[in-house]
Amino acid sequence: MSEEPTPISYEDLAEIEDAFAEVDDEIMRRQYELSSSLYARRAEAVAKIPNFWPLVVEQAPMEIEDYITHEDSAVFAEHLINLSVSRPEIENGKKGNPRSVEIRMEFSANEYFEDTTLVKRCWYRRANDGWTGLVSEPVKIHWKKSKDLTDGLTDAAVALWIAREKAGDATATALPEYKALEKKVENWNGSNTSFFTWFGWVSGRRYVSLEESEKANAEHATRKEARKSGSKSRTDDAEDTEDAEAEDDSAVEVHQQGEEVAASLAEDVWPNAIKFFTQAQELDDDPEADFEDSDLDGEDDQDGDDQPIDIRSLVQGKEKVRTRDSFGPPSKKQKK
Amino acid sequence: MSEEPTPISYEDLAEIEDAFAEVDDEIMRRQYELSSSLYARRAEAVAKIPNFWPLVVEQAPMEIEDYITHEDSAVFAEHLINLSVSRPEIENGKKGNPRSVEIRMEFSANEYFEDTTLVKRCWYRRANDGWTGLVSEPVKIHWKKSKDLTDGLTDAAVALWIAREKAGDATATALPEYKALEKKVENWNGSNTSFFTWFGWVSGRRYVSLEESEKANAEHATRKEARKSGSKSRTDDAEDTEDAEAEDDSAVEVHQQGEEVAASLAEDVWPNAIKFFTQAQELDDDPEADFEDSDLDGEDDQDGDDQPIDIRSLVQGKEKVRTRDSFGPPSKKQKK
Repeated sequence: MSEEPTPISYEDLAEIEDAFAEVDDEIMRRQYELSSSLYARRAEAVAKIPNFWPLVVEQAPMEIEDYITHEDSAVFAEHLINLSVSRPEIENGKKGNPRSVEIRMEFSANEYFEDTTLVKRCWYRRANDGWTGLVSEPVKIHWKKSKDLTDGLTDAAVALWIAREKAGDATATALPEYKALEKKVENWNGSNTSFFTWFGWVSGRRYVSLEESEKANAEHATRKEARKSGSKSRTDDAEDTEDAEAEDDSAVEVHQQGEEVAASLAEDVWPNAIKFFTQAQELDDDPEADFEDSDLDGEDDQDGDDQPIDIRSLVQGKEKVRTRDSFGPPSKKQKK
Repeated sequence: MSEEPTPISYEDLAEIEDAFAEVDDEIMRRQYELSSSLYARRAEAVAKIPNFWPLVVEQAPMEIEDYITHEDSAVFAEHLINLSVSRPEIENGKKGNPRSVEIRMEFSANEYFEDTTLVKRCWYRRANDGWTGLVSEPVKIHWKKSKDLTDGLTDAAVALWIAREKAGDATATALPEYKALEKKVENWNGSNTSFFTWFGWVSGRRYVSLEESEKANAEHATRKEARKSGSKSRTDDAEDTEDAEAEDDSAVEVHQQGEEVAASLAEDVWPNAIKFFTQAQELDDDPEADFEDSDLDGEDDQDGDDQPIDIRSLVQGKEKVRTRDSFGPPSKKQKK
């Protein structure tokens, strides 16, 4: 601490972070390549286990559990028949960004929505001011009459998306659909936390188009090269923030933590699904270990919103999941 | 859900998990190889930044923050000069387990302990009943007189370790050192949460020796091969639990979440150090964003144990950290 250290700048640190990110990209591609056949094998195996995915979701990490209401739990418990995650930009050896993910949920016929598959595609992009992160188009859910668990939020998000596309401006605010969604988000104010709202999520900040991202990546690469070639007196033009206000589209964002939910599904739930499932089974074997649910048999007081979600007991009400050793076909127990 | 699925067993799932674990091992080795020169470059850069590591620790994730007392904060803020993580079993292309980690902290001379370097080695091992996880020898900290932040817990953990080594039994309980530590742990009962107690941590369950682990790994590999060669009528001898009680050494475990702390340091703090540092700087630039500390200038009421830790303000009391663009040598401000 007593020597005079050479000054070091944020730019130097950013350069190191860039190099780490490149390694991460390579590692993610390699991992995807090495594990895709294993995921296929797992999918085949778990398809034979009744309620595999509902039980996994029940053990979901906090980032997701926070956004699962009791009504959502019922939908997952009774109708979620498959979940899968892929990385569309690196599929089949493509050299795109390994952080872009496609999350697909399959549902059996149900009273809530017409869709049998909901697919959320999240793209890792760079904005012209240097911001990087996931963005996504809102997904239309075809809710059945009076069954919209998101209180119209997903519909309004899709409506604004379409209106902005027509206007040719992905952040346009002078649109009736903008005012409508803004009002909905304002009224909502955190009170509708249905998981399905996540399908309407766009961005942690604002949408970034593929075109903008490609341009920004090219510029970023040029700057990086310039730095590497060692011009010490580099101009810190960096990425310029022209209009900070235009960057914040959160007034019409239906889900504040959409990126975290996507990351948690893709990087935790998906790779660790068997672990989460096994945990659910173990809790099932040992009710004392079940600190999430102190009254396993008291299913009547499930209405309070503060109560932890218990998909397991919902699932068990339907059909008992086999424990240990072997999972046969579901036994045909009557609903309790 | 209407077809009769072929039964599937925990063994099938375990086999898939084993295959995933093999891919993970390969990926971790490759990542280590690709990033080690980058970590060296980062170490060189951050050595020039005053208080880099104290600021990183201040932004540490929950798993660690929960175990940092106000006294610990003062030690980190004033004396933590370096932190590094390595993977001793895969160093220089060795083919050992990539999950074993060595966490090294360097301190400047201080009033608390004599050591300038504390090294915690955590080994990923398999027990003869199939349990896998990190285990570690307790690390002796040479506390200065009346300065032991762990209230004797690390000393007692080391004393039991030595006594058990002499007895040739790593889980012996009929030892005075066992009774002594058991009593300390019982009295302690969660009230001493000094981070330094972690150096005394042994295992989430019980210690597993290298010898036991190698034997268990060999047996595990044999079973795996047998399964692969397709003997459908495999005997589910699995790993047998002989004496469940002997597996639980938690009565003398000084830190209940030692493995989580090690994982968090190795897999989050270490790879993301620059991000955590940048976060700390940004909070510094924008006091309103600092939700961890609502009274930045009120340093007097830091005694309450429930208050969030604020290493940043401790550090700032000592010397102002430069913000943005360039970090020169520390300015010689007086301690406030």
